[in-house]
Amino acid sequence: MRTGRVTVLAGGVGAARFLRGLLRVHRPADVTAIVNVSDDFTLHGLHISPDLDTVTYTLAEQINTETGWGRADETWRVLTELGRLGGQDWFQLGDLDLALHLFRTQRRSEGATLSEVTSEIAASFGLELRLLPVSDDPIQTRITPAEPADASEIDFQDYFVAQRHGIAVRSVRFAGIDAAQPAPGVLDALSTADVIVAPSNPFVSIGPVVGVPTIRDTLARRRDSVAAVSPIVGGASIKGPAGAMMRDLGHEPSVVGIARLYVEFAGTLVIDNADRDLADAVADAGMTPVVTDSIMSSPERAAALARTTLEAVSGQ
Amino acid sequence: MRTGRVTVLAGGVGAARFLRGLLRVHRPADVTAIVNVSDDFTLHGLHISPDLDTVTYTLAEQINTETGWGRADETWRVLTELGRLGGQDWFQLGDLDLALHLFRTQRRSEGATLSEVTSEIAASFGLELRLLPVSDDPIQTRITPAEPADASEIDFQDYFVAQRHGIAVRSVRFAGIDAAQPAPGVLDALSTADVIVAPSNPFVSIGPVVGVPTIRDTLARRRDSVAAVSPIVGGASIKGPAGAMMRDLGHEPSVVGIARLYVEFAGTLVIDNADRDLADAVADAGMTPVVTDSIMSSPERAAALARTTLEAVSGQ
Repeated sequence: MRTGRVTVLAGGVGAARFLRGLLRVHRPADVTAIVNVSDDFTLHGLHISPDLDTVTYTLAEQINTETGWGRADETWRVLTELGRLGGQDWFQLGDLDLALHLFRTQRRSEGATLSEVTSEIAASFGLELRLLPVSDDPIQTRITPAEPADASEIDFQDYFVAQRHGIAVRSVRFAGIDAAQPAPGVLDALSTADVIVAPSNPFVSIGPVVGVPTIRDTLARRRDSVAAVSPIVGGASIKGPAGAMMRDLGHEPSVVGIARLYVEFAGTLVIDNADRDLADAVADAGMTPVVTDSIMSSPERAAALARTTLEAVSGQ
Repeated sequence: MRTGRVTVLAGGVGAARFLRGLLRVHRPADVTAIVNVSDDFTLHGLHISPDLDTVTYTLAEQINTETGWGRADETWRVLTELGRLGGQDWFQLGDLDLALHLFRTQRRSEGATLSEVTSEIAASFGLELRLLPVSDDPIQTRITPAEPADASEIDFQDYFVAQRHGIAVRSVRFAGIDAAQPAPGVLDALSTADVIVAPSNPFVSIGPVVGVPTIRDTLARRRDSVAAVSPIVGGASIKGPAGAMMRDLGHEPSVVGIARLYVEFAGTLVIDNADRDLADAVADAGMTPVVTDSIMSSPERAAALARTTLEAVSGQ
């Protein structure tokens, strides 16, 4: 098992699977995950942190493996009754999942920061890595649909869940990001460790992490110690709307497009064998390409991907 | 079945049972219940209205008949998991019950008033009476324990649930009550109907209803049309801490003590056969006594009590 400090920038499902692989080949106590919070939202009065929860449930082996989100062995007593009452039941909140949101909301109402609650939750679930929200300050993803021409901004969950990310996107912004301070430990974890950008959506998962000004500056100074895993394989995203968003927002939906997005803060891009023909173009875009099997169809394959990425970023 | 407008001032369990009896003998569409909200509190980010919920569940025949509060056929998936996470699980929130709190909290976050949400909930549960919170403004019961001498104020739920009302009380006050406006419909329901004060705790259920200044003034002008059912029988409360609180706060724990508390806003006091010897003392205290069987050990007995009370207040 490898050792040494490693920090992973993470969104939800893809990052969670990558981290699960990483923890099989690297000492968990040496790993820090810095997780996107711009999808966080309040529903029914509850503070919901989708990416933090997906990472937590996945690493605790309590994820619903069919959906990739939510808890295994979940039940739906509350949501079913809420629907009967005429309440909003478009966001699937299972009973076990709800308990976590109640816990987070109560602790925050008592004055705990999101990082403090996240640390408590990670301990409850027996996680051995360090899990940090990117910021304790609010960062909120806002999406402007492409149609109609005068469409108003909508919240991320409205786009992602209610609309099932089935609409074209004109623009994405992160309200609050310029004023957001990195959570305690974030800059330190980025300054002294090998850094991996997990295969997450570049716009709505990685964007609102690297878009925090001090984080961007820190990474830019250390780009030789930063390797990203491409979320795009064969011109499409493995999961979710990353590919479609790249097209919508005027980027080439390929590993080359990813390289152009990441080149300022990451030196290495891990791409799939399917994209080996684009390795030279990735290099031309300014990133060192590493070609491997990047499809995480099993924990073993995720572990192999993590090992290759670690070797690329650490130079050994 | 009787008809004509009747308005009931209500707390939780005792009032709910009285109302269930009343609706057996009086046309439900003519009945308004004005319910105490000073026990309302926020936990896990959720707006919880214990008295409104107890009345709703009881009248919908969905109450847990063993406890007198909470839902029948309840499950505890969320609370069990919350306890595992180290969360606050001292307030028993079942899965079905939680759905209602989620609904209320979400609707209020959308701008609905408590009365509006209460009306929606009553419709969902198929209630035929009109259910009104006493106010849409916050009224919060604060209890000062008798011991130690320098004890600080505590919240009502801390006293009632966490401490199981097992401590002596030095004083009770209702934060916000002087500024509270009656909810829409409340003053009208008190101005034109026969009014019944349900057998609820005089200090922490009825007190924070009749203590709203405009309500107190309205009732005082109509005391001949107001009948109260004593919550004290044989010198003790049927349920809960009313008897102990009367002693703690320097009142005689008897129907006479109740008469002295209610005389300014109610003309008639319905007392139990067990207290028939105190009828003259009730009259001396300024209220017209009506002696009957007031123990609501079954819905039929509650219905008989309601009928007697209606006859007393309407004069027929």
